[in-house]
Amino acid sequence: MNADDHDPTECVVVREILDRVGDKWSTLVIALLGERGRRFGELKSSIEGISQRMLTLTLRQLERDGIVSRTVHPTVPPRVDYALTDLGRSVLEPISTLANWAADHGTDIAEARRAYDAREAAAVDSRA
Amino acid sequence: MNADDHDPTECVVVREILDRVGDKWSTLVIALLGERGRRFGELKSSIEGISQRMLTLTLRQLERDGIVSRTVHPTVPPRVDYALTDLGRSVLEPISTLANWAADHGTDIAEARRAYDAREAAAVDSRA
Repeated sequence: MNADDHDPTECVVVREILDRVGDKWSTLVIALLGERGRRFGELKSSIEGISQRMLTLTLRQLERDGIVSRTVHPTVPPRVDYALTDLGRSVLEPISTLANWAADHGTDIAEARRAYDAREAAAVDSRA
Repeated sequence: MNADDHDPTECVVVREILDRVGDKWSTLVIALLGERGRRFGELKSSIEGISQRMLTLTLRQLERDGIVSRTVHPTVPPRVDYALTDLGRSVLEPISTLANWAADHGTDIAEARRAYDAREAAAVDSRA
């Protein structure tokens, strides 16, 4: 199949999936559940800066995508466990490849940003 | 280094970088520039559904991150070429790993969504 010959519908799906699994909160939830199943509260306290609402939304989307399973235990109060499905486990490696790249190149990116911002500031000064 | 022992600043940076390179438009721009350098208009016409403003913003962020280079040729009118830097080329493989996963599992995800939506609809019906 030629590179210019993609099914456009498939491209839209791939794009949308990338947007979802590349999302910073989804990535973190997938990484944490890749270690072991966790409850809502455990996830919340492990992810610095996530709101209750955003975690709920992220888990619901991942459940809808078939990446995360949600098990309600009939205790009082009910205990709800989240875990990766087989599909969810299959995305761990692609995500960790990208996360490792980000960890390895974080310094390069930070330096590039500083240089870019300095150039922009100089350009503004020279126009002042 | 223990998994629970990450530098929190580094985690924030990794998270932010993932969010950027995982973004659907960034991913597409990086993939297209991975084939060859392109002008703004070529990128715009190759990416279905992107607005002029969103493409400008995406390119500017990728330039600031040191992933994309922008070369202005002193012609009339000026010609502006975009290309991947060495850093940008290094992210091609991690991104294509993730894009291939998305292409391979698009059907599974679509099926999971249909099943989820059907369950939700049934739950609403049973409460009605």
